[in-house]
Amino acid sequence: MAESPNVTYSFLGPVGTFTEAALAQVPEAQGKPWRAVNNVGEALADVLTGRSVAAMIAIENSVDGGVSATQDALAGAPNLRIIGEYLVPVNFVLVARPGTALADVRVINAHPVAYAQCRTWLESTLPRHGHIPASSNVAAAASLFDNSQADAAIAPPGIEKHHDLDVLATDIGDNPNAVTRFVLVSRTTELPARTGADKTSVIVELPEDRSGALLEMLEQFATRGVNLSLIQSRPIGDALGRYRFVIDADGHILDERVADALLGLRRSSPNVIFLGSYPRADKRPIEFTSRYDDEIFIEARAWLSTLLP
Amino acid sequence: MAESPNVTYSFLGPVGTFTEAALAQVPEAQGKPWRAVNNVGEALADVLTGRSVAAMIAIENSVDGGVSATQDALAGAPNLRIIGEYLVPVNFVLVARPGTALADVRVINAHPVAYAQCRTWLESTLPRHGHIPASSNVAAAASLFDNSQADAAIAPPGIEKHHDLDVLATDIGDNPNAVTRFVLVSRTTELPARTGADKTSVIVELPEDRSGALLEMLEQFATRGVNLSLIQSRPIGDALGRYRFVIDADGHILDERVADALLGLRRSSPNVIFLGSYPRADKRPIEFTSRYDDEIFIEARAWLSTLLP
Amino acid sequence: MAESPNVTYSFLGPVGTFTEAALAQVPEAQGKPWRAVNNVGEALADVLTGRSVAAMIAIENSVDGGVSATQDALAGAPNLRIIGEYLVPVNFVLVARPGTALADVRVINAHPVAYAQCRTWLESTLPRHGHIPASSNVAAAASLFDNSQADAAIAPPGIEKHHDLDVLATDIGDNPNAVTRFVLVSRTTELPARTGADKTSVIVELPEDRSGALLEMLEQFATRGVNLSLIQSRPIGDALGRYRFVIDADGHILDERVADALLGLRRSSPNVIFLGSYPRADKRPIEFTSRYDDEIFIEARAWLSTLLP
Amino acid sequence: MAESPNVTYSFLGPVGTFTEAALAQVPEAQGKPWRAVNNVGEALADVLTGRSVAAMIAIENSVDGGVSATQDALAGAPNLRIIGEYLVPVNFVLVARPGTALADVRVINAHPVAYAQCRTWLESTLPRHGHIPASSNVAAAASLFDNSQADAAIAPPGIEKHHDLDVLATDIGDNPNAVTRFVLVSRTTELPARTGADKTSVIVELPEDRSGALLEMLEQFATRGVNLSLIQSRPIGDALGRYRFVIDADGHILDERVADALLGLRRSSPNVIFLGSYPRADKRPIEFTSRYDDEIFIEARAWLSTLLP
Repeated sequence: MAESPNVTYSFLGPVGTFTEAALAQVPEAQGKPWRAVNNVGEALADVLTGRSVAAMIAIENSVDGGVSATQDALAGAPNLRIIGEYLVPVNFVLVARPGTALADVRVINAHPVAYAQCRTWLESTLPRHGHIPASSNVAAAASLFDNSQADAAIAPPGIEKHHDLDVLATDIGDNPNAVTRFVLVSRTTELPARTGADKTSVIVELPEDRSGALLEMLEQFATRGVNLSLIQSRPIGDALGRYRFVIDADGHILDERVADALLGLRRSSPNVIFLGSYPRADKRPIEFTSRYDDEIFIEARAWLSTLLP
Repeated sequence: MAESPNVTYSFLGPVGTFTEAALAQVPEAQGKPWRAVNNVGEALADVLTGRSVAAMIAIENSVDGGVSATQDALAGAPNLRIIGEYLVPVNFVLVARPGTALADVRVINAHPVAYAQCRTWLESTLPRHGHIPASSNVAAAASLFDNSQADAAIAPPGIEKHHDLDVLATDIGDNPNAVTRFVLVSRTTELPARTGADKTSVIVELPEDRSGALLEMLEQFATRGVNLSLIQSRPIGDALGRYRFVIDADGHILDERVADALLGLRRSSPNVIFLGSYPRADKRPIEFTSRYDDEIFIEARAWLSTLLP
Repeated sequence: MAESPNVTYSFLGPVGTFTEAALAQVPEAQGKPWRAVNNVGEALADVLTGRSVAAMIAIENSVDGGVSATQDALAGAPNLRIIGEYLVPVNFVLVARPGTALADVRVINAHPVAYAQCRTWLESTLPRHGHIPASSNVAAAASLFDNSQADAAIAPPGIEKHHDLDVLATDIGDNPNAVTRFVLVSRTTELPARTGADKTSVIVELPEDRSGALLEMLEQFATRGVNLSLIQSRPIGDALGRYRFVIDADGHILDERVADALLGLRRSSPNVIFLGSYPRADKRPIEFTSRYDDEIFIEARAWLSTLLP
Repeated sequence: MAESPNVTYSFLGPVGTFTEAALAQVPEAQGKPWRAVNNVGEALADVLTGRSVAAMIAIENSVDGGVSATQDALAGAPNLRIIGEYLVPVNFVLVARPGTALADVRVINAHPVAYAQCRTWLESTLPRHGHIPASSNVAAAASLFDNSQADAAIAPPGIEKHHDLDVLATDIGDNPNAVTRFVLVSRTTELPARTGADKTSVIVELPEDRSGALLEMLEQFATRGVNLSLIQSRPIGDALGRYRFVIDADGHILDERVADALLGLRRSSPNVIFLGSYPRADKRPIEFTSRYDDEIFIEARAWLSTLLP
C-alpha cells in the first residue's frame, strides 16, 4: 500500500476563530483536513510529532503585542520553521443569550486578548462590568450556553451563524485597524523561495555578562542595512533581567546582508534560533540601499580571497 | 471637623495574593486600611481619584515577563509615580476540594501567568489536563467551591489557611527562583530620596519615521554609562510595528548621568513618560565608572558657561 | 596721550604669499598695518603678546591636508580664538632666472607643501629634477637671486610682478581645484555672531585608557546631528598611539546641539580646546534635521525641570 | 647564465640616518647591498621596478605624527606590502663647523620633522634663530660644508664620526622617549607568518555621500573586537573635506576577526588598500576577548551553512 503523506493542518479552534480565518488564506490547505486544537502547545506538538503537516498560530497582535505563549513555545521547539505569514483584520461583537438586553450585562466572558482590545468601549458602555477570562473567543461565546456566570461574551463577527446568540453590539474593538498576524509553522527545513518581499524571524538570547549587549545585537542588523519590523523582549525565565528577543528582520536568509547579520548574531549570542525566511503577508518589497546589495558582499569576499594564501 | 487625609492602600485582591504579600513589605502601609481590588485599572483609578494614597501592582515576573496590563495602564496614566519596588518569591501549590486525588484532576483553574509558570510540572504530571483561566490565583482556588468545571486550582502557598482545600502538590512552579516584582504607585510628585541604589522607570515611545530609532534610544543610556535592568517592548496599538518601551534604568533622576539621559530621550522620542526614581528592592548599590560621576557633568557645564556670553 | 589700540595684522610673509591673499579678504584689516612674519609660531606669538590684533594662518590644504605646524601650535596656545575663515585658490608657476630654459632645470627650490602639490607635473615634465626645500613659496623664488644651487622655483602666480624672473610654466599644480583654508586668529573671547552658516573648531584629546574612545568621541557629534567637515589626527607627542583630533563641526556654539555636543566631549575627553565658532568661508547654511532644533533642546530641559525638585 | 635574484635593500640616505639604523635591525638584509635614496618615492620606485627587493621607510613618528609623504606614497602604490616593522629611538644633536660657539648660531639647517621635535629646546636656548629646511638630517649636517647660509644643523647622534663637525649640544629633542616607526616594504604578496603579535595596515577611503561614514568605518573594527593602534587622516586631495584613513589594526589577516573586519571595510568603502599583516616590532601579543576567537567565527559559518540549501 502506498504511503499516504500526512496533509492535515492544525489551528487554534474551535471553528470560527480568527486563526481559522488565517488558515483559509493558505491555498495549499484548501481541501485538506483541518484539525482544531486547544492551545499553541498542542498545535506545535501536532507538527513536531507529524500528526499535522503544518499549524497556523497567532504570533502578534497590533493592539496587544506579541503573543507570549507562541513566542515562548517557538523558543522551546527549535526544529520548527515558519513558512508563511497571514494577516487577519480583527473586530469584535458583543453577544448574549437571546433576550438579553445590553443594559442587563454585568459579567462578560472573553479571551484576555480580545478583552484588552475592547476595553475602551466596555469602560464607556458598561463601566461596572466584570470579566471572566476564556480560552478562546469562540469558547467564550459557546460558554454562554453552559452554566456560566457570564451574561455576555466578546466574539468574532459571524459567531451568530454558528450559535443561537443575540448580537448586542458590533465593532466594539478600540482600534478599527486592528489586525492579528499569524504564521504557518512546519517541520520542513526547505526554505520558501526568495521573493524580494521576505521576512526572516529569529529568536536571539542576550549574553548575560555584558552591558550593552542589546545595543550590540541591534548593530548586527544596522551595520548590514537590515531593518526590523518586530522586536519583542521575552524573559528567558531563569532570573529577572535576562531576556531573549523575538525579531522579524526585513529580507531572506538567501539575501547576503541577512545571512551576514545572522553570522554576526550567532557569534555574539549564546543562542540564536532561526525560525525561517518567508514571504511577507503584505507582499511589500524590501527597500534597502544599494550598498547592501548581494554583489557588494560577493565582491568583498572575492577581494579578500585574493589576499589570503 | 479636620480633614482626614486618605491613607488607604489598594492591592490586587483577594486576600492571600502575592500582591498582598508585597504590600506587607511596606512599613508606611502597616496599620492603615488596605483595599482589595479586581484589576490593575481599578487599582490605578483608586490612586488617580484619591480613593487610595497608593496602590501595589505587579510589574514584572521572572518567568512570564512584564505584566502587559500594568505596563499599558501606566502608559495611559501619566500622572502616576512609582515610589517603591518590592520582590516576592513566587511558588505555587495545586489545591482541590477535599477528597480529590491527584490522579482525578482533569481540568485546572489558574490565572494565566501562574499557569504558564507551572507548565513543565503540569505537562509531566498531568499531561491530559485542561485549563480554565481565572482572574487571580486566589480566585481560582475560591472558584472550586462554586459550580465550577475545574477539579483543581493553582494557588499561592498558604491558601489552605483561608479555604477548606486539600493541597495535592507543592512547589509545582517550574523555576524555584521565580520572583515577581511589584511597584507601589502614588500620585505624589515628590521624589524618593537618592540612596545610591536606585532605579528610574520610564516609558519611551519610538518615533515612527526612522529606522535605527531603537538603537538611538539605547545609545542615550549607553553614552552616559547608564545600565538598563528592564527593557520591554509594548505595541503602541495603532499599527503593527509601532512600539513603546518600558525601561528600568540604574540610578536616580538626581544623578546627573540619568538626568542627562532623560534629556536625550525626551529630545529623540515623541513621548517619554517618567514613572519615577525609587530605591531598588535589592538595595544593591549602582555601579558605574567614575567618568560618569556627578562632578564630571557639573564641571563640563561650568566649562561651557565660560565659553558662552 | 591717549592709548592707541594695536590694530596690526600678522601674516606668514613675505609679501605675495597665499597668506597675504587671504588677509586681503578681511574687510577689517584694510587700511591697517600688516606685519609679515616667518612662521606660524611667530604669528601666534604676535597675537598672544598683543603685538598684533590678529594673525592669518593656513590651517588646511585640499591636497596636503591639515597644516601640522598650525594645528600643533593652536593646541599649545589655548587662549587664542579663530574668528574667521578664508579660502584661497592655490595654483603655481615655475619660475627661473631670466634666460633659463625649461630643459635646463635640474634643481628646484620649493616649499614642501607646494612641491607636493606639483609632483605629477614635475615627474612627467622634469623626471630627473632634484628638490631643495624652502621656507615659503615666495622665499623659494627670491632665493634664485642668492648664491643658490637651484635653477628654478615653484611660486605663486603673479610673482613675476615683484621679482625679475621668467615664468617657465603656469598652472603646474596637480589639482586645478586646489584651495587652502586660512583662519584669522585673535585673543578676543567675544564670539562672532551666529549666522546659520557657521563652523565650530575644537581640539580634542582622546583618553588613553579606553579602546573605542574615538568611536565614543564621534558619537558625541552624531547623537546630536552635528556633521564634521574636518577631522585630523595629530600625535600628542608623548608616546606612539596617543592622539588628539582637530575637528571642524557644522554649527555655532550658540546652537543648542553644538553646545550639547561640546558638553559631551568635555565629559569624555581629558582635554578639549575650544578654538572658536565663526562664519564659514563658503557661507553655505548648515543643514540639519528639525529634530535637532534649538527648541527641542530647550523644551527637553523645561520638561526635565518639571520633574526635579 | 643563471638568473641572479635582486637582493638590494633601499633606504632613505645618506648613511647615518635613522632609516639606516632601522635597516640594521633586519636580519635578512645583513650582508646584502644597501642603496641610499633621496626620498620615499624613489625608495618605493626601487621596489616597484625590481631594482631592490625591499625598502625601509619611516611611517610614523611619536612626536610629529604619521609621515605624510610615506602614507600618500603607499596610497598610490597598491602593489606594495609591508612585511616588517622596526622602531628606532630618536634623539638629536646640534652640530656646527669646527670653531663655532653655541652663542654664534643664528641660522639652523634641519629636516622639518627633526626641527619640529627640537622646538622647545631651540626656543629656550636660541630664541632668535632662523630655520632652513633640509631634505634629511644627515644632509643638513653635510650642507654645513657647502656654501650654506646655516651656522649649525640638527643631526642624529654619531654624525661626528662621519663628518668633521663640533657637537654643540646633545639630547636636544623635546621628548626623551621619542621613537620613529619604520616599515619594510616589498613587492611580495606572501603573507608573513601569524605570530599572535601581529599588526595589519590598511588605507581606507571614506565614501563621500554619507555623514557618519567615519563612525561606520570604525564600527567595522569595534564590532569584531579589533583595536586600532594608528589612525591617521589624509586628504584624498580632490576636495576639502574628503579623507582617506591610514589604519594599523591589532592582529593578522589570518585571524578570523581581522579578515571579517576587512570584509566589512571593503563593503562600506569605495577603496581599501591592504598594506599587509606583519609581526609587531614590540612583539607584544594581541589581547582580545575570547568571544572573538577564530572558533567563534568558524562555528557561526558552520551553523549558517546548515540553514542554507
